[in-house]
Amino acid sequence: MPGFIGIHLGAGKHSEALWQEYKKLCCKACNKGYSLLASGATALETVTDVIAVLENSPLTNAGYGSNLTWDGHVECDASVMDGCTLHYGAVGAVPGVKNPVKLAHHICKKQSCNALALGRVPPSLLVGNGARKWAEQAELTTVHSRRLISDKALKQYHHYKKKVERYQIHTDKILTPLDTVGAVCVDAYGDVAAACSSGGLALKHPGRVGQAATYGCGCWASNGTSHVPSVATCTSGCGEYLVRTMLAREAALEVQKNSCSVTGLHKVMKTKFMESPFLHGVEEKIGGLILLKCFPNDETGEFVWTHSSKTMCVSYMSDAERRPTIRMSHLSSGDTPRSTVVVEGVAFKLHPLAVRPDTSIYS
Amino acid sequence: MPGFIGIHLGAGKHSEALWQEYKKLCCKACNKGYSLLASGATALETVTDVIAVLENSPLTNAGYGSNLTWDGHVECDASVMDGCTLHYGAVGAVPGVKNPVKLAHHICKKQSCNALALGRVPPSLLVGNGARKWAEQAELTTVHSRRLISDKALKQYHHYKKKVERYQIHTDKILTPLDTVGAVCVDAYGDVAAACSSGGLALKHPGRVGQAATYGCGCWASNGTSHVPSVATCTSGCGEYLVRTMLAREAALEVQKNSCSVTGLHKVMKTKFMESPFLHGVEEKIGGLILLKCFPNDETGEFVWTHSSKTMCVSYMSDAERRPTIRMSHLSSGDTPRSTVVVEGVAFKLHPLAVRPDTSIYS
Repeated sequence: MPGFIGIHLGAGKHSEALWQEYKKLCCKACNKGYSLLASGATALETVTDVIAVLENSPLTNAGYGSNLTWDGHVECDASVMDGCTLHYGAVGAVPGVKNPVKLAHHICKKQSCNALALGRVPPSLLVGNGARKWAEQAELTTVHSRRLISDKALKQYHHYKKKVERYQIHTDKILTPLDTVGAVCVDAYGDVAAACSSGGLALKHPGRVGQAATYGCGCWASNGTSHVPSVATCTSGCGEYLVRTMLAREAALEVQKNSCSVTGLHKVMKTKFMESPFLHGVEEKIGGLILLKCFPNDETGEFVWTHSSKTMCVSYMSDAERRPTIRMSHLSSGDTPRSTVVVEGVAFKLHPLAVRPDTSIYS
Repeated sequence: MPGFIGIHLGAGKHSEALWQEYKKLCCKACNKGYSLLASGATALETVTDVIAVLENSPLTNAGYGSNLTWDGHVECDASVMDGCTLHYGAVGAVPGVKNPVKLAHHICKKQSCNALALGRVPPSLLVGNGARKWAEQAELTTVHSRRLISDKALKQYHHYKKKVERYQIHTDKILTPLDTVGAVCVDAYGDVAAACSSGGLALKHPGRVGQAATYGCGCWASNGTSHVPSVATCTSGCGEYLVRTMLAREAALEVQKNSCSVTGLHKVMKTKFMESPFLHGVEEKIGGLILLKCFPNDETGEFVWTHSSKTMCVSYMSDAERRPTIRMSHLSSGDTPRSTVVVEGVAFKLHPLAVRPDTSIYS
């Protein structure tokens, strides 16, 4: 395969009963990525369409089947970053857009025209109904807000809303089995990209925007040079904590200067997340991250994941294995999500880099 | 005076004809800050109320008198950061809230309760109508959206909208004389804080959110230690470029490790803004910044400003001069906004630090 695609279904607490379903979804998403890369798609196009597959599944907290807001609506966050141009596009708390990630991708592409008429600068983050309007103008699929609500999400909404209304105190935690989903990719031309999408916290206040729509916090991608590796990252977990710690960018910067990705990620998770002064007083620091690293001229790369949550479901596909690998990563038994971090990874091979037939897309 | 307050009216191109008006507004805002600090207000409370004074003036592009969106509405961004707790609160594209900065402040204060009922985390960024709802629940002043439109903003809107509709090409630039306003402060207890507020770009797409509501990009504040100085910063200029470069945070981090603030700010403006790979291909890099720096145990501090825009109006008030100083900082004649940066600053004295009577607000 010309390139590599890595995805995750969120850091959280995955249901064992749904394992077969998660596997199927991971296969579908990775195969989609594979075929796109094989047809010459860019890394940015690939992560976008792979995330769209995850958004369309009711299994994930993204797009269709997202958690509902306090008012019972779906409001989505999503973002993409292009390692080649360093452009970024994001949407926050957007209602009624079938694939929020496609809207983020459209906004990102528009960054390439540095100014609109009369020197107006294209936006990089659009929110709410304004974002939906942009989607309509861009002829992306918009739907009635209700069409994004799955039966399961509605049932959970009623169950937990009743609980909150009954006990206005801290009782048990809301079951949010999955958080933000994400994808990282290197394409046949050596460019990297990252994308993520989230329905946000269950029962969130309307208009709440999390890390999946915040620059440097939900995803990051940056092409390398002969001395600095290319990196792409996606985070998952409690949005507000991932914003305060800017985990996507911090992880990317650390791994760009640390020769060992696993050591680098462990250091970041420890010093910049679990022990971060920005999370002082926070008891449960739930977060996770996937990261892709490769040198532009090398034919190998690394895909690494880390999490402090109970589980994280990751999946990837490279040329060596022509079918997706799916892993449910667990904290060791006995470890608590409050103090321990898992860091694991694999190396992958890349075909010799191709030369892009038409570079005008980045001119 | 117990503490120091520094403000700016935006990096841009100030009208000389309005100089007396700018001076009056700066005096009013600084005097407000002075009296708050003298009454024992925290830095966070002080910057919030000082920015509210600027929002209430039709002279600034914040709150009342903001630039209008393409649809002819006012949608505001604002944020605050508390150097003591490192908490942050922001609102983006919010309609019908008289003082967006007070809403950002309310959200920031809520961060101190680490969880709502059922383990829900308090939001740090709220946007659009959801943010307005939060304001209503918090009993902050909400108004009909039209009440935030000044005559001047409406006139400019019609003038430029006609131009854009007539020439869908790059002609001359939209006159946006002022951008985001900001304030930085150190209080009698040695705590620092920063706040900013913006009406955004003229004729922006509805739902567009800029740096004034983006973490690390519009403002930053962090209390120091015996080895690391306390810093507070606010940025102004083209929001999308300030987001891509995370200028508020980058400037703060650089000055925390560089013994000379002026050298540090010059380095940041050059390497992380004017020559930033994140602004590759951008012709006019218009930005500005104010920064406050002091060591917790010292009785002196520094207030520094920098800009690549034609002008930047700054003002400050310390105990030594018991009245506000107002400066219209200019690029040297002949310099173009495309390539040159001004960095200037003053030192100030602080009274010996007081001991906070009630520390429970930060517990």
